[in-house]
Order: sequence, then C-alpha cells, then structure tokens
Amino acid sequence: MQSADAKLSRSSLLLALRRYSTAVHNMEQTVLLPSLLRDVPYHNDPDCEAANHSMDLYEHYLLLKAIKNTVESGLVPHDEAKSHAALHKGLEPLLEAEPETLFHFHLRGLFTVMATLTKKSQNLTEKYLDIIGISH
Amino acid sequence: MQSADAKLSRSSLLLALRRYSTAVHNMEQTVLLPSLLRDVPYHNDPDCEAANHSMDLYEHYLLLKAIKNTVESGLVPHDEAKSHAALHKGLEPLLEAEPETLFHFHLRGLFTVMATLTKKSQNLTEKYLDIIGISH
Repeated sequence: MQSADAKLSRSSLLLALRRYSTAVHNMEQTVLLPSLLRDVPYHNDPDCEAANHSMDLYEHYLLLKAIKNTVESGLVPHDEAKSHAALHKGLEPLLEAEPETLFHFHLRGLFTVMATLTKKSQNLTEKYLDIIGISH
Repeated sequence: MQSADAKLSRSSLLLALRRYSTAVHNMEQTVLLPSLLRDVPYHNDPDCEAANHSMDLYEHYLLLKAIKNTVESGLVPHDEAKSHAALHKGLEPLLEAEPETLFHFHLRGLFTVMATLTKKSQNLTEKYLDIIGISH
C-alpha cells in the first residue's frame, strides 16, 4: 500500500506545465473581451493586504498569458532584474546550498507555483464569467 | 543587433536538462569502476571550506545519477524534508512573492543549477580519468 501511495504522491513537472497551458488556453477562449477586466481588483476583500497591489484583473490576464508563452517556448528569459531584486534579499541560504539541494528546491518550487498559477487562471476565467453575468 | 543578442541570451530549460542528461551519461560510460571514487575528496584544496563536507566522489557520483533519473522521469519527488529543512530558514521573501515572480525565480534557478550540475558531472569524469592515470 505504501508503495502505491508513494507513486501517487509523485508528480510530473511536464504534466503541471501542460495543465497550466490548458488552463490559460481555456481562459483565452472564454475571455472574448479582455478590456472588461480593466480596473477590476483581483481581490474582492478590501481588508485583504494583497488587495493593495495595484494590478487589476486585466494586468493579471496579460501576465498569465505571457507566462504561458514562456512555458510553451521552454525559453528562460535573460536575467530579469525585476524578479530578482525583490527576491535576492535574505536568500543567503540558497547561495550556500549544495547544487543537488538547489535542484530539488527549484524543481519542487516550479511544480508548486505552476499549480498556483493554474488555479489563478481558472479563478480569472470564473471572475470574467461573473462580470458578463453568466452564472456557473 | 540588439534583437539578435537578446535571442542568444535566451536559453532553453529543456536543452539544459538534456545537456545534463548527456553529461551524466558520459560520466557513466567513463566511470567503469565507481568504487575507485570511494574516499576521494571532491575538493583537492584542504583549506577550502567546502572540503569539510564529508561526501566523497563516490557519493557525488551516486547523487548525480539519481538526479539524472529524476530529470529523465520528469517526476517531482514528494516533499523532501532533507532538502527543505536547510532552505526554509530565511526564505520569507519567497513566501511573500507573487506567483508570477516565483515562476521566473524557479525557472531561472532550475536552469542555472542544471548548468552547475552538468559542469560537476564533467569534473567528476575528469577526476576519474586522473585516478586511473589517463591524461587528457
């Protein structure tokens, strides 16, 4: 039994990337008028700390599409100062880690974040359906 | 010209994974007697801080092979307490980051660490050739 459980608990990175691609494809097929997403906040709860982020649904929509392009091309964009500046602080443990440890860290990290982004694409698709008044 | 440079500076994650796989394959083809790697330190320089790590070349050899299996299967091993415990401290910036930022962070991280591990496999192959007395 434990062996079967162990097998189930393993997951494929390629499958996670494909699931994301499909979720964004569905989003693109559903969101026929992306401009309706402009100025709509991502978080409905004004007390939510993340609601302070100034990005609206339209910007999230564009980002999710851009990430799909990166995923499907398989190309790693050249050093992105923006994404690194925010993360480099306090990440000394990463610099000291053995590459074998880093490999598992980034593999699992990429896998986990793909699941988060897939959910986000699905949420955005549902929000769009709400906006145009289609109940689901 | 800048456009051409930009294209050259982009890199493919799949290509990096394939390069690693090839490097370990070469290592396996070259290292016919892995037991010769036992008790050989990875770092020759005793002053080097990393030399304190107790892993010998043989253990590095096994790790590189295990990572190749993970890379080729594409499966993400279930939560590895070992690799995470060492990294979770001081990584609060990661928890606060937007998933889009995390995506680029882990994609680039995985790409970079594959290059490091490829180099490591090539170094280990060279060290083995040194041990059996084949100059190169």
